[in-house]
Amino acid sequence: MTNAPLLSLLHTVVEGSATLAFALSGLLEAARKRLDAVGVCLVTGLAAFGGGTLRDVLLDRRPFFWVAHPGWLWLLLAVCAGAMLFLRARHFAPTERAMQWPDALGLGLFSASGTQLALAQDLPGIVAVLMGVITATFGGVLRDIVCNEIPTALRDHRPYAICAFAGGWVLVLAQQAGLPPGAGLVLGAATASGLRVLALVTGYQLPPWSSGDVAK
Amino acid sequence: MTNAPLLSLLHTVVEGSATLAFALSGLLEAARKRLDAVGVCLVTGLAAFGGGTLRDVLLDRRPFFWVAHPGWLWLLLAVCAGAMLFLRARHFAPTERAMQWPDALGLGLFSASGTQLALAQDLPGIVAVLMGVITATFGGVLRDIVCNEIPTALRDHRPYAICAFAGGWVLVLAQQAGLPPGAGLVLGAATASGLRVLALVTGYQLPPWSSGDVAK
Amino acid sequence: MTNAPLLSLLHTVVEGSATLAFALSGLLEAARKRLDAVGVCLVTGLAAFGGGTLRDVLLDRRPFFWVAHPGWLWLLLAVCAGAMLFLRARHFAPTERAMQWPDALGLGLFSASGTQLALAQDLPGIVAVLMGVITATFGGVLRDIVCNEIPTALRDHRPYAICAFAGGWVLVLAQQAGLPPGAGLVLGAATASGLRVLALVTGYQLPPWSSGDVAK
Repeated sequence: MTNAPLLSLLHTVVEGSATLAFALSGLLEAARKRLDAVGVCLVTGLAAFGGGTLRDVLLDRRPFFWVAHPGWLWLLLAVCAGAMLFLRARHFAPTERAMQWPDALGLGLFSASGTQLALAQDLPGIVAVLMGVITATFGGVLRDIVCNEIPTALRDHRPYAICAFAGGWVLVLAQQAGLPPGAGLVLGAATASGLRVLALVTGYQLPPWSSGDVAK
Repeated sequence: MTNAPLLSLLHTVVEGSATLAFALSGLLEAARKRLDAVGVCLVTGLAAFGGGTLRDVLLDRRPFFWVAHPGWLWLLLAVCAGAMLFLRARHFAPTERAMQWPDALGLGLFSASGTQLALAQDLPGIVAVLMGVITATFGGVLRDIVCNEIPTALRDHRPYAICAFAGGWVLVLAQQAGLPPGAGLVLGAATASGLRVLALVTGYQLPPWSSGDVAK
Repeated sequence: MTNAPLLSLLHTVVEGSATLAFALSGLLEAARKRLDAVGVCLVTGLAAFGGGTLRDVLLDRRPFFWVAHPGWLWLLLAVCAGAMLFLRARHFAPTERAMQWPDALGLGLFSASGTQLALAQDLPGIVAVLMGVITATFGGVLRDIVCNEIPTALRDHRPYAICAFAGGWVLVLAQQAGLPPGAGLVLGAATASGLRVLALVTGYQLPPWSSGDVAK
């Protein structure tokens, strides 16, 4: 393509913003739980890199993202230090609201790239889609497990993993239809991010368990 | 053997029933915690495949069971969807009681096959037995960690992991005594399942901590 | 060196004491939570071997320590059995106080050896240091996650992971300065253990979040 450098720059910007959005979700949760400096750094790092790292362990891929790009680890340490010095409770809610847009972009990008990596290993479609979902959601799941909460992604009835699931299938179908990989990646990411933005804008919720008789 | 197809069919039936029993334990726990659709599918999948997947990560084996047989992922999705539509709270206790028999079969089968896979890598007996125990129990352990509970397997004083441990040793000793692998597998699985059934029938409990002075 | 056998013996003694100190931290937590025999063995084993095993999974190294030295698994089983028979609540606090000294030695040794193993794979300095920190701390983190607590290492404001971090950097810098690997290992381990002992003796705490307005 003629605009490859521009696309590559755009990709870097989106990926960077999304990783930061994931990291900040960890940072805010660590602050709410009043973890110490070690806990803040570890939970922030888990939220940012946990999903991709778990995917790479399952796919037996090396090196991990943060091993190949250790500059990100320094950036995270700096963000954590800055947050511990300057972040106040009154910043929490606005920060979370501002972060949900880059987070939605990241959801699309990470689910599509996770699916793509699995397809490149000739894995079945459902497995590849699952790897995309793991990439996009397990950072948050691990963050919540370490903070001793039932993971938000499993109980808040707002579509998140489901957007990643839909986007992954678009990518799988695009590849089976013979589209070039780049097109499938863009379509899949756009589907996941678009559905997420739609859910945020409309406030849509997944249906609850049918009737009140589920409780023990 | 002359009845190999029959044996193979039997093996498939037992393994399938056991995987479903493990999956249903996750589904019921997710329903009790009122997780949403994503949580139900993820906890069900963890309970069904978590133990074998962790064993394969530790043994560095690929592909995982659910990667080699992706049809199981579709089946789990269907079971979860059906359960969310039709499962009512009054079905929970009967479902759990009905499931404990295939679960006991699965305990034997999974602990024996996990031990066998480790022995095939020439690992020491105690390590192989431990891999069998991990295969049989860590689906439940991961299910409970994600649901923010202390895992049942570690605190309910009913013999479960211990049956897997005993069955694993029977397999190891059978192999060291020179029995053919198939015979050891059957003996080990029968021991683990038999002990579990015995524990269920008699209501046997592991001895508690000696006296009340352990509490903090 | 002329005193290599003596050094090797010393290394074995320190490593063994540290592994036992880590194991006992798991055992005491399991006892406080009144887990059953299975839970005691599993939490003790996680505390002792969890950090090194997670590091080896991330670095894709095999065999694990407890696979190469299965005698340790037997020793742990014996320690757990002995503790369940003889450990009384009044022994808990003295045991923990006595254990903090071998634990500090282990902190230095495990963080330095984890860092060293990562450097041997030509990983960047920050990644190598992180592997050392994971080796030294994730046994305790996994122990606390299984016991359904927010991990102590992330919230108690006492320097632990930070000592491992500092020791790791000393090792990295020593290697970059061209010192022989053995010297860097000793310097790094001494730094981490020394800082930990200093923190224990002085009761130093990490600074808390700035002011009371962090709570939600």
